[in-house]
Amino acid sequence: MATDATGDADSAPDAYSELLAKYERVANVQNAAGILSWDQQVMMPDEGTPARSQQLSTLSSLSHELLTEDEVGELLDRLESSELTDEQAAVVREIRRKYDRANSVPTELVEEISTTSSEALPAWKEAKAEDDFSKFAPYLEKHVELKREYAEHIDPDKDPYEVLFEDFEPCLPLEQAESILEELRDTLVPMIERIRESDAELATDAFSSKGTYDEAAQEELCRDALSTLGYPWERGRLDVAPHPFSSGTTFDARVTTRFDEADPLGAVTSTIHEFGHANYTLGLPDEEHATPLGESRDLSVHESQSRLWENHVGRSEAFWKLFLPTFKEHFEQAEDVTVEEAYEAANQVYEDNLIRVEADELTYHLHIIVRFEIERALISGELDVEDVPEVWNDKYEEYLGVRPETDSEGCLQDIHWSHGNFGYFPTYSLGSVMAAQLFAAAEDDIGDVYARVEEGDFEALHEWLTENVHRHGSKYETNELVVEATGKDFAADDFVAYVTEKYGDLYDLD
Amino acid sequence: MATDATGDADSAPDAYSELLAKYERVANVQNAAGILSWDQQVMMPDEGTPARSQQLSTLSSLSHELLTEDEVGELLDRLESSELTDEQAAVVREIRRKYDRANSVPTELVEEISTTSSEALPAWKEAKAEDDFSKFAPYLEKHVELKREYAEHIDPDKDPYEVLFEDFEPCLPLEQAESILEELRDTLVPMIERIRESDAELATDAFSSKGTYDEAAQEELCRDALSTLGYPWERGRLDVAPHPFSSGTTFDARVTTRFDEADPLGAVTSTIHEFGHANYTLGLPDEEHATPLGESRDLSVHESQSRLWENHVGRSEAFWKLFLPTFKEHFEQAEDVTVEEAYEAANQVYEDNLIRVEADELTYHLHIIVRFEIERALISGELDVEDVPEVWNDKYEEYLGVRPETDSEGCLQDIHWSHGNFGYFPTYSLGSVMAAQLFAAAEDDIGDVYARVEEGDFEALHEWLTENVHRHGSKYETNELVVEATGKDFAADDFVAYVTEKYGDLYDLD
Repeated sequence: MATDATGDADSAPDAYSELLAKYERVANVQNAAGILSWDQQVMMPDEGTPARSQQLSTLSSLSHELLTEDEVGELLDRLESSELTDEQAAVVREIRRKYDRANSVPTELVEEISTTSSEALPAWKEAKAEDDFSKFAPYLEKHVELKREYAEHIDPDKDPYEVLFEDFEPCLPLEQAESILEELRDTLVPMIERIRESDAELATDAFSSKGTYDEAAQEELCRDALSTLGYPWERGRLDVAPHPFSSGTTFDARVTTRFDEADPLGAVTSTIHEFGHANYTLGLPDEEHATPLGESRDLSVHESQSRLWENHVGRSEAFWKLFLPTFKEHFEQAEDVTVEEAYEAANQVYEDNLIRVEADELTYHLHIIVRFEIERALISGELDVEDVPEVWNDKYEEYLGVRPETDSEGCLQDIHWSHGNFGYFPTYSLGSVMAAQLFAAAEDDIGDVYARVEEGDFEALHEWLTENVHRHGSKYETNELVVEATGKDFAADDFVAYVTEKYGDLYDLD
Repeated sequence: MATDATGDADSAPDAYSELLAKYERVANVQNAAGILSWDQQVMMPDEGTPARSQQLSTLSSLSHELLTEDEVGELLDRLESSELTDEQAAVVREIRRKYDRANSVPTELVEEISTTSSEALPAWKEAKAEDDFSKFAPYLEKHVELKREYAEHIDPDKDPYEVLFEDFEPCLPLEQAESILEELRDTLVPMIERIRESDAELATDAFSSKGTYDEAAQEELCRDALSTLGYPWERGRLDVAPHPFSSGTTFDARVTTRFDEADPLGAVTSTIHEFGHANYTLGLPDEEHATPLGESRDLSVHESQSRLWENHVGRSEAFWKLFLPTFKEHFEQAEDVTVEEAYEAANQVYEDNLIRVEADELTYHLHIIVRFEIERALISGELDVEDVPEVWNDKYEEYLGVRPETDSEGCLQDIHWSHGNFGYFPTYSLGSVMAAQLFAAAEDDIGDVYARVEEGDFEALHEWLTENVHRHGSKYETNELVVEATGKDFAADDFVAYVTEKYGDLYDLD
């Protein structure tokens, strides 16, 4: 056994329990805030905001105070010089990372960032409504400055964008992420160009040409989709939210969705996406609840789970063989739609899409990559805020073959920069790439997954994901987890192979 | 200005702001717990309990820790020797009371009471299911002992039951409460006997003889009832809960109800009852949110608001003149029911009721009084736990003219003793009595309230309640509040006059 820092080697087990007890309080406060936030988006009456903001603000400062208590630091010090099991070492590593980060940024700076966000939000709304980037530019400028300062506090020797990226993806090297995104770009830009030139005529309007779809029936349809995939209703709910999300704990992981009367596919794929997130949460070990071993790995791994179910299952031909009869039970108007048509409608690539949230499985990533490249240049100082609109539009023309005519449908389209969130977007694409790698490995291990999907048998896939991903919580860092699950480093090749085959077939590319 | 304890007279304003800021955090944590508890009863999936219990337990200990911080005591000391406005003095008085109480009970005792409750609950369930009081008796014994000890810590010189009563009713003297309950008993016991002997035949089955009532339609009916009374939906919700309750803040005060297919009246009166609670919460001043001036006075005042709306409005003939047409829109089967019949059905007195939660406006109080008398004797040591069943049954025979044949429908019927809650029940009856006094004063001030109710005009009543009760928050202590609102001390005579007239008419008593 290594010498304990306090000279008392026997105290390690006690210190470990004490650390877990302290962390449990932090996790409980954060989970409570999660319920309050769910309620705010799903249940809260319109005028409830003032009280809710106060409650969330108090819980946020309490969880920060509990995490940064001196005793937490002392327990970490003692445990880091003790002999620990792999699991204990992982717990100490995870809490240490959060503790250091929370302790390194001055409260005043956190508050200034928060104030800037509050002011930037209405400015962004106005700028977008009036198509006037100059109204938002000063706030973006301010956010860039504050976030550089923030990164400086955490690690003055690191590329500041890397530090910001770590807020969302603390254990995946930015260099690796960047090389994956570059490979995506180099694959997808020419592929989308060829699709645009393809003569293939997909049944893109198989559903949308059949009139409107009643929202109550869509909700029933989404419940059926969740039941089909094995969602455990005794640990979950489906509700409606303007921006669908999933949240909760392994005991209570809830899903939300939204409806478009003209397009029932959107609700189904969005519900399946959120199911993937909830299914990860539900697969975390009950007995490790409120410890790092019971918490999910970071955003890219979470997004790998939502994308795996949304794209590899929910958009597959096998799934539509299984689910189309259920669909038709709810919507008679679709009785003549064939499986092939449903599959094509669910996988069409849009030719002139400018808006990220309306994008398909391929163009989506170029929206992400444009923003990623611009964020990097902004934070490094290579790009000035005033030049963002032009660079944005140039990149859209280069990567997607379309040029926004206004900033409202260009660089002002998304809310995220008004929050000062830089480094968040890349995790969306990384998750899709990881989904392809995990699904390929699951296919290798299980055999013909799609034959099972056709029969509504998801058991083997659930078991594989639980065994290889969910049950580990945050025991492994991101790359380790991928290696443990798939036998190789996290990389883009399975994703490239997947889209090349799938969209090659759909669009008759050679 | 009085000399400040610290010798720094100018520091009072600062100390007051600091105290409010500290208290605001306590209130925010408690309000957050309120939302979690609402969610648990209304939305949470079945298996969510383990995580929710942990979250609530952490929030509970955090609010205790925040309230008992040394700085809170120091600020109170300084402010108590400073010159304060009436409002400031009220704030200091309220926080002092909570601070002292929270500080005087050792944590170990709080935990022992909590553990005993956890063990007593399944024992009570088993005892009730098997009609075997002896299985619950040891836990009741233990609770009595622990609660005596608890009271001793808070104030060794006081009647321990008084101390326990103060947990729920901190500023109403027990002596006064007791004399009100005695007057209730002496009025109601003979009145119920005369009703039992009366030849009057009320239309008790006006609704219940008309088949079953669809639950979805009952829910719409309850929404209409809330809208009729002026419930502001932008600050509230109606949902379903097995045990109806209301909770929230002035920005977000929610109501729940439940349905019985055989009896639509139960859902309506229960919804109106919860509306009364929510309406009080909604009338608290927005600008004092999360301070004692924005918090409701205690349980009896809260119950006065629910009972005023439930009994004095919702069970009135005027209300049924207004609301019966709406009722019939939802339930065609009731098209022949007259206003008089509806009124009689809503006000029937049950002749052989043993169960509190099924009681009517008169017999209800005798259920409360039996328990109050037994609780007092248990805590004082005059009554042994083993003798509770016999004393219970004797009192039912004496007060209600019915004798329970089993303990399951006798002293084991309610869950509350398994929580160790002694002193809680009396507030239900006190609230009804206060409702009568407030309603009589409102009638004096407004003129003919019932003529307005018939026309669906609740504005003057809302204004009166807001002006005289709601807007004060906890500024006045209970008696002061009643005196300010009605011009006289809190007493039973308006209640006695109200039931004497109403039930005299209904049952042809002289």
